[in-house]
Amino acid sequence: MHKVIFDTDPGVDDAMALLFLHASPEVELIGITTTFGNGSIETTTRNALYLCERFGIAAPVARGAAAPLVGEAGAPPSFVHGGNGLGDIALPSEIARTPDPRPAHRLIIELVRAHPGEVEIVAVGRMTNLALALRENPGIVGLVKQVVIMGGAFGINGVLGNVTPAAEANIWGDPLAADEVTGASWPLTMIGLDVTQKTRMPTPFLRALANEAGDAGRFIWDISRFYEDFHLKGGVDSIYVHDSSAVAYLLDPQLFETRRGAIRVVTEGIAFGQTIQKPADTGFPPTAWDGRPEHLIGTGVDAEGLRRLYRSTLQNAYR
Amino acid sequence: MHKVIFDTDPGVDDAMALLFLHASPEVELIGITTTFGNGSIETTTRNALYLCERFGIAAPVARGAAAPLVGEAGAPPSFVHGGNGLGDIALPSEIARTPDPRPAHRLIIELVRAHPGEVEIVAVGRMTNLALALRENPGIVGLVKQVVIMGGAFGINGVLGNVTPAAEANIWGDPLAADEVTGASWPLTMIGLDVTQKTRMPTPFLRALANEAGDAGRFIWDISRFYEDFHLKGGVDSIYVHDSSAVAYLLDPQLFETRRGAIRVVTEGIAFGQTIQKPADTGFPPTAWDGRPEHLIGTGVDAEGLRRLYRSTLQNAYR
Repeated sequence: MHKVIFDTDPGVDDAMALLFLHASPEVELIGITTTFGNGSIETTTRNALYLCERFGIAAPVARGAAAPLVGEAGAPPSFVHGGNGLGDIALPSEIARTPDPRPAHRLIIELVRAHPGEVEIVAVGRMTNLALALRENPGIVGLVKQVVIMGGAFGINGVLGNVTPAAEANIWGDPLAADEVTGASWPLTMIGLDVTQKTRMPTPFLRALANEAGDAGRFIWDISRFYEDFHLKGGVDSIYVHDSSAVAYLLDPQLFETRRGAIRVVTEGIAFGQTIQKPADTGFPPTAWDGRPEHLIGTGVDAEGLRRLYRSTLQNAYR
Repeated sequence: MHKVIFDTDPGVDDAMALLFLHASPEVELIGITTTFGNGSIETTTRNALYLCERFGIAAPVARGAAAPLVGEAGAPPSFVHGGNGLGDIALPSEIARTPDPRPAHRLIIELVRAHPGEVEIVAVGRMTNLALALRENPGIVGLVKQVVIMGGAFGINGVLGNVTPAAEANIWGDPLAADEVTGASWPLTMIGLDVTQKTRMPTPFLRALANEAGDAGRFIWDISRFYEDFHLKGGVDSIYVHDSSAVAYLLDPQLFETRRGAIRVVTEGIAFGQTIQKPADTGFPPTAWDGRPEHLIGTGVDAEGLRRLYRSTLQNAYR
């Protein structure tokens, strides 16, 4: 069993990833922490609470960072996720579920310390909560089983960023946090655009979910209409599978090819938010990568296998 | 006929590129300008004069920048090109040829203005001389036929830098100059590590030059021993063809695949010296690439065709 903390900013693909985690019989979801990103922290926390209420997810939901470690939060990308972060579907005005009283980074610390060596953190938004947890309690580094991040764009196969040619949104939103998180020596894997853009869910796939995966499938269909439209307008034939790719790595890392090496994040200038890995087998004169822990990045993915895993997991749980 | 100014820091592969230009019946070499880089400006200017004297190259040689626009010149990479910049072969203590009295950037300006619309600049070192020429006389932008640069690493096919994971040496040596040169709206193509590392000259190829291309071939063999050794020690089976790839692009652009888009160069932080292109067909929110002219970068190369062109050109000229 995977004891999972899901750090998230729902977000259409966040919601799809949360349902994937919830549906997996191998996952015990012990905490959900929210961050600003795909919406304001108010929006993403409300959405997380709504998802938990609607789908009977018992894990505590702790509200996290409203802004990056340095600077202010940018405007939420409502053109991607809709103004309400869930594709502008109708949402109830009242939600019974209430947030955990602890701030997100403290819930992370307490859960990790309560289950030493067992907790796996799947983080699919800005890395701010993780960085705050590290700053407050650096000792958690040795207690976390692994961290799986959706974020970054490492230029594998010429993949660019999605906010600038250099930067992916989750990292661009708080590059300093990402640099601190990738500078910690916990087992960490970054699943970036290099692989998430290689896996798409075409309309017929989403329709099949709607037909075969009960209320969850229909919900995914509903929230993904706006998101799909954004992709189509951008010339992409179907939706990228960002956050669920991190979940898929947790469940079946064999679906991915990876490369090991130290990771740095650019925190200034035109490449602000860029992730750069120094592959472990390369030699350079002294660089800013020296002395950093080596982590994995995703460099390849079995997209068909990933889609199969997603579909069967949701079918089995929700039909 | 190509009327060419060669901006260079010889350098082993610079010398090989200069002999390639000199050997080509389609090239009229009208000026050679030197820059710091593979050696100090004293070393690279001495080497350029020596090459002209030894091989009967009549073009004026103008001494250029000794340091980047901002900051100081780094230590020359004597582990790549030898302490004398030419693979540590024996060089005469006296050279009869003397430099042109004009500084490099002024020779560039005067030659361009003397031949409006005709001059092609092949620049294979730091971009400092070109940037100084632009600053002193921005009007040359409209008078240059094209600029071909060996420099940069755009992450095509996962290619990294060679000074840091982000930066190629020519650009790393003066990123501000490179950003200014790529910000000018002259026709410009960057031939970076993305393609130059795809073309290698194995030992038997260099031996064939030694046997078939007269004194020039034997000279290339001699100066490339140290350079080849550097590659072999780094786990590369034979020498990369950096500077001669820019010459090959000048002579036969069909050997290359290219991509169009605005180019920026990172001038600060850990990605210092990185070149990043925003492909012309991509859309982003407002970025630092907006409003910049579109240029070409090399993304693919017919390595065998390039080697064939190099070999036949030298054989025909020097046998």
